[in-house]
Order: sequence, then C-alpha cells, then structure tokens
Amino acid sequence: MEKEGNSGNEGTKSETSAMSVEGGVRTDVENGGGGGEEVVVTPWTVSGVVDYDKLVKDFGSKRIDQDLVERIERVTGKPAHPLLRRGVFFSHRDLGFILDLYEKGKKFFLYTGRGPSSRALHLGHLIPFMFTKYLQEAFNVPLVIQLTDDEKFLFTQDPKKKLEDFYQMGKDNAKDIIACGFDPEKTFIFSDLDYVGTMWKNIVKIQKAVTYNQVKGIFGFTDSDNIGKHGFPAVQAAPSFSSSFPDIFGEKSDLPCLIPCAIDQDPYFRMTRDAAHRLKLKKPALIHSKFFPALQGDNTKMSASDENSAIFITDTPAQIKKKVNKYAFSGGRATLEEHRELGGIVEVDIAYRYLTFFCDDDELIEKLADGYRKGEILSGEMKLECIKVLQDMVKQHQVRRAEVTDETLKKFMTPRALER
Amino acid sequence: MEKEGNSGNEGTKSETSAMSVEGGVRTDVENGGGGGEEVVVTPWTVSGVVDYDKLVKDFGSKRIDQDLVERIERVTGKPAHPLLRRGVFFSHRDLGFILDLYEKGKKFFLYTGRGPSSRALHLGHLIPFMFTKYLQEAFNVPLVIQLTDDEKFLFTQDPKKKLEDFYQMGKDNAKDIIACGFDPEKTFIFSDLDYVGTMWKNIVKIQKAVTYNQVKGIFGFTDSDNIGKHGFPAVQAAPSFSSSFPDIFGEKSDLPCLIPCAIDQDPYFRMTRDAAHRLKLKKPALIHSKFFPALQGDNTKMSASDENSAIFITDTPAQIKKKVNKYAFSGGRATLEEHRELGGIVEVDIAYRYLTFFCDDDELIEKLADGYRKGEILSGEMKLECIKVLQDMVKQHQVRRAEVTDETLKKFMTPRALER
Repeated sequence: MEKEGNSGNEGTKSETSAMSVEGGVRTDVENGGGGGEEVVVTPWTVSGVVDYDKLVKDFGSKRIDQDLVERIERVTGKPAHPLLRRGVFFSHRDLGFILDLYEKGKKFFLYTGRGPSSRALHLGHLIPFMFTKYLQEAFNVPLVIQLTDDEKFLFTQDPKKKLEDFYQMGKDNAKDIIACGFDPEKTFIFSDLDYVGTMWKNIVKIQKAVTYNQVKGIFGFTDSDNIGKHGFPAVQAAPSFSSSFPDIFGEKSDLPCLIPCAIDQDPYFRMTRDAAHRLKLKKPALIHSKFFPALQGDNTKMSASDENSAIFITDTPAQIKKKVNKYAFSGGRATLEEHRELGGIVEVDIAYRYLTFFCDDDELIEKLADGYRKGEILSGEMKLECIKVLQDMVKQHQVRRAEVTDETLKKFMTPRALER
Repeated sequence: MEKEGNSGNEGTKSETSAMSVEGGVRTDVENGGGGGEEVVVTPWTVSGVVDYDKLVKDFGSKRIDQDLVERIERVTGKPAHPLLRRGVFFSHRDLGFILDLYEKGKKFFLYTGRGPSSRALHLGHLIPFMFTKYLQEAFNVPLVIQLTDDEKFLFTQDPKKKLEDFYQMGKDNAKDIIACGFDPEKTFIFSDLDYVGTMWKNIVKIQKAVTYNQVKGIFGFTDSDNIGKHGFPAVQAAPSFSSSFPDIFGEKSDLPCLIPCAIDQDPYFRMTRDAAHRLKLKKPALIHSKFFPALQGDNTKMSASDENSAIFITDTPAQIKKKVNKYAFSGGRATLEEHRELGGIVEVDIAYRYLTFFCDDDELIEKLADGYRKGEILSGEMKLECIKVLQDMVKQHQVRRAEVTDETLKKFMTPRALER
C-alpha cells in the first residue's frame, strides 16, 4: 500500500537531477529540479514533476476546494488540519457523500495502510498517518490499518528479502504508526499475513469481479509477472468493505469507508469502486494527498537505502541539522546579492515546503514565505526554522515511540470490536 | 480440486454420443461410445476416450507396475486395494521415494481434496476417498482434505451461485467424506474459506515462484479470466507442504507428502513440484487414478444436474436398479443370438466396469468377465450383479453417513495436532 517515500522510489528510474549545493544556492531552480521528463504516477513509480491538476483530471477525482474544507470544519466543529487547509490533501472521491451521511448521524470507518519495505520510516511515511489521526479525532470514528507485507514480498526484486522479513518490518512500522497517537479503542492494525484468512471471502468475491485485462490496464502487469501480483489488488481492496472485518464490525456490517492515502494509491481504489458497483457494495470514499518531496527536491526519490535522501524518524537532532543544511534543495539564489535582489522561490525550497507539512503556525509560514520571496529571509534562515520544527517533531515522535511496548502493539493488532 | 464426476464435466462440451438402449444392446460399441473426438484432459475438462498410456507419456508420470504393487504390499504388510491391483490407480510420481523413506521409518502425510460443486456426490466422487482411506490405514499416516469452495466459486459460470453456497456444499460433502471411514485422530478436513489464512505464507511464496506465463501454459487461462483464477493454483498447491499446517504438523515441519487424485489434477501438482524445487521444499509424490465412467459410457459426463447420468450416493435401491438397467451402457450384442455367438465386450460394459471399481471379490469379477466374453453371461445378468454390489455399498454408505453428526464434522474440521 502506501509507498516507500510517499513519493517516487523503488523501481523508479528517476535520477537525482537537482542537487542543492551546500549553503543552498544554485541556478536553474525555476523548473523545480525537474526537466521535461515524463511524469509517471503508479503505486510503484512516481517520477517527474507532478502536475496535480492534470492528475485530478486524468484520474477523474475531484479537487478539494475552500467550500469543502469549510464544510468539514462545520461538520466536525474542529479547525481543518494544516495538511487539509494547505492543500496537501487536495483531491477526493465521494467525500461529500460521507459528510452527508455523517450529518444525518451515520458513522463511517477509516482505512489506510502501509507497505512495510523498510524498518526505518522517514517523514513522508508519517503524512497519511498524521492526517488520519486528525480524521479519527475530528469525526470520532474507527480505523483499520493494513500492513501489506505480502505485497512487498511479491513485488520486491531483492532475492535476499524473505517473507518473514516483511512481516517483521510491518510490526516495527506498526509501532511507529501507533506513536502517531491513534486511539487504541478505535484502531485495528493488521498484517495481511495474519489477517487475509478473515478477509478471504471478500477477497475472492472481489477477485471474481475483476479480470486480468482490467488489472493489466490499471497497473501495467505483464505475463511474466508472478501470479501473486495479479491477485493482490483484491487484497488491498478488501478492507474498503466493513464486512471484511466480521470480528471488528460484524459479519453483516456495511459501514461506509473513507480512505486517506497518497494519490498514487488511487488506481487500487478506482478498481475497488468498480468492483463494489458490481458486487452491490458501498463504494469507498477517498481523500488524496500530494507527494512528500525528497530532500533533494522534486523528481528525486527518498530511499531507505540512501540515508541522505530523507529525514528518518530515528534521526538525531544533529543528523537532522546536517541533512537539512547539506542536502535540502534550496529555492535561494546563486549569490547573496542576487537573493536580496530577486528573492527566493518558496515553491521549490525544500526547507520551506517541509515547514508547510509540519509547522502548525500559519502566521509563521506566511511570514517566512513573504520574507523569502522579498529576499529578506535567506536560505540559511529558512533552513534554521525548518530544522527547529523537524527536530522538535522527530524528538516528540521518538519519545512516544519509546513508550510503545510489545503489549501495546499486541492490543492494536488483536482483532476485536472497535468503539464507534 | 477433485472434479465433478472424477471424469469429464462442467464446462466440457462433450455430448452424450453413446446412449445405451433399454436391455443393454446396441451396435458400434467397439470404440467405447467415443468417436474420434479430440481427447482433452485438464482439471476442468475431460472429454474423449482417454488413452492412459499416452497420458502418462504426455504428463511425464510413471506407470504403476506389478513390482510396485507388490512392493506396497510388502512395505505395508497388507494386501493391495482392489483399485490398485486392478490398475484404477495406475500412474505415479516419486511413489518409490515415499516408500524408500517409509521403509527407513520416516512417515509422510496424505493430501487429497474435493471441489464442492454439488450437494449430492455420485459414485465417482468416492473413488479417491475410498482409496485414500486404504492408504491411511495401510500406512497409518495423517491425512489432510481440502475443500476448494473458493475455486468452485471463482470458476463457476452460474451467476446465481453464491460463495456461501459452495461453502455449505463443502460442509455437506465433508460429511460424506467422513462416512468413507477416515480416522478422526489422523484426519483434518478444511474449507479454503476457513483455512486459507493459515496457509497464506506458503501460498504467497508459491505465487511468487510461478508466473502468469506458466499458469497460462499449464491451465489455459486467458486475459479475460478473473484474477482469482490466476492465483488459485497456489491455493491448491499449498497443502502439499506440511509447513502450511503449523497447527497440525508444526511450523517447521517438512513431512513428505503423497497425493492420491484423479489424473486430471496432475497439472496442479506438476506446477507445485516445479515451485517446490525453486522454494527448496520437498516435492509432493502423487498416485493417479483413471476416470470413473458415467452410466452412459466413456465420452459422456456425470453431472449432478442430470440424475440419470450417475448413481448418486443418496439413491434408493429402486433408483439404482432402474438406472443400471435403463441407462448403463452395455457391452452386450444386438441380439441374444449374436451375444451367445460373439460374446460381450467387458471393456465398455458399464455394469462390469462398475463392478471392477466396487466389488472386492476377484474370483467373481474374473468369472463374470470370462462368462461375458464367451456369451454365457448376458447383459441383464451382468447388470444384476452390478446392482447388488452398488445397492449394498450405497446402503452401507448411507448408514454410515446418517451417523455423521454436526459434532463429528466439527471435530474433523477443527485444526489440531494429528496423530502420526
């Protein structure tokens, strides 16, 4: 499910085409470090500089506009999450329908997931979980989180990686997910290897409603792919239906589902919605995020095997400082004089962009953007603000993570009725 | 798994080309009722008159010869089952290897199965179970029986049939299977819908070791098939490995496996043996049966929807009598005079052939064959002998079936360590 990096990665061939030089100045930044390459967005490859308007049009989803953000605030009685009001979660399917029902007193459940391909998570991995935590709190609804250890095994090309390794990574990742602050009475985290059996009836029904021609069209599978890949989309689809969780929601349950995820996961759920129609089940609603950029900027990838490509949630304050200063792609100009004269470009400045993801203070964000554009704030100063926010956030995460015991993990991963 | 009819069926287009007329006389019987049609043997279609020598050559298995039958008798200290000494179980893979190990004191486990496509079983369905019961007793080994309810749902073309219907048929069938006399301390019967979760780790490993190109070649799948079909062969493969049953044999178990099945199931296990090689697991051994003929003779099919195509194990003595007399294809001649002069043809005489499956008395069988060939025994007399044996056998089955309670079923279907 959720991608390595929540942007680019494994299997993508995009190269690091835009390295920031130390001190954060370089030329030709206007194109954001991209360069006319083909844009690819699938669950396994995100490359190129993504045009989100085009993506919404191509995928056939809907933009989240100001009206919808305000409606969510009205319905929940809570301020919108920064990731929502700043447009990181920018697209949706049938969100209005979920809100209509919710206003009439009908609850729904949330479903998100993680493909455990590494033990160490980076900041991008946290985005959907931070946002999902907000949704759980704001709507006061149950949540299921799928760890697709089976998928990661079926799709890896590394012959040394065993199925059991992905299972263990899933459990490690689950502790980091729990540290995001989910409600233990309302959250069920499951590994496919543990839980596919319970979902098997629905998986088989979904598989019967989908042909190989369809998944070939949607996911680009080929005849030389292993047969597990062909069947897997139904495994990711199944949790969209509350009847897949008889021990959580009851066998006959048909609670509506809302799925927060990065936009690259949309193909799975287009397929799911299509199958739902054929199976006369409720189509899941979706809320999509943009991709979280790598330190080196758009069109580069975050990778667990390249520790300088991303801030990991296990990084020390010193590592964070060094990585941001040394590797964060800068929207600053080539020389101090030029920067003072022309101003920096926030749209491609990674330090600034990371702040828009993780800093709650709207005023500070605006002040920084404004000053940067005017050339009053320098790249180094922007990085300093970013470092402070990331250090604080990562430290808090580490404190919470240290408190997640095996016992806690077991509780979250035990099938049981969830509070609604 | 095991086919509707243990011969032809669902999905096959072979037509009833050789109807016996009442009294059991007709012409052109020498070809067994076939007629130059293409011979097809796959897990979903068996049509044409099967040349078993050719099948063994095509499939690359080995004939069971007299030496091997005698060796089995020596090793087990028990007489060979009539189905073995009469060549119904006629082909194998690695059976010698299983016997080598057994002689050294190393036990194995048996694996067979049933695709529950109807509530009522006919006599053909019983063959593999009768033989498996003999193997369990003779070798004193544990047995697992898979009910492939998921497969039957994925492959049915009847839109009215629900997944839950196949699950229920599986449970009904299991009671008939139990009535064959399996040892409750040594036998585990499972529905895929209940048990796939436990096997999922091995299923995923097998799926990763098999490409779509391979299953396309083996099973003739097409791109417009549903994706569940593509993945299913791994579900039927998984029980070949004792590690798929951690609660039965222990997680690290690698007990050798012997699979008794009709020869049409061999493609699944050729694929399984190939995957086993890649996964460094023990290849399952196989022992194959010929197909059980429909009442109307070779190249016709037994079908649950045509009650006159087969003897069902729910039939009354009167129904058995009527069906054999009225529908059993006869190897007798057109007139009494001709029969006396030329003799009957036992090879195509269904009454005689059914006796070779179900009558233990070798002397009687020989006497009947001899007398029939000489024209001394008439078709009606052969049918009479057949009717007696079938009535007795079906009645005994019904008595045992009536004793199988829900409690007994539950015991057989509860995952638990089996005696070895």
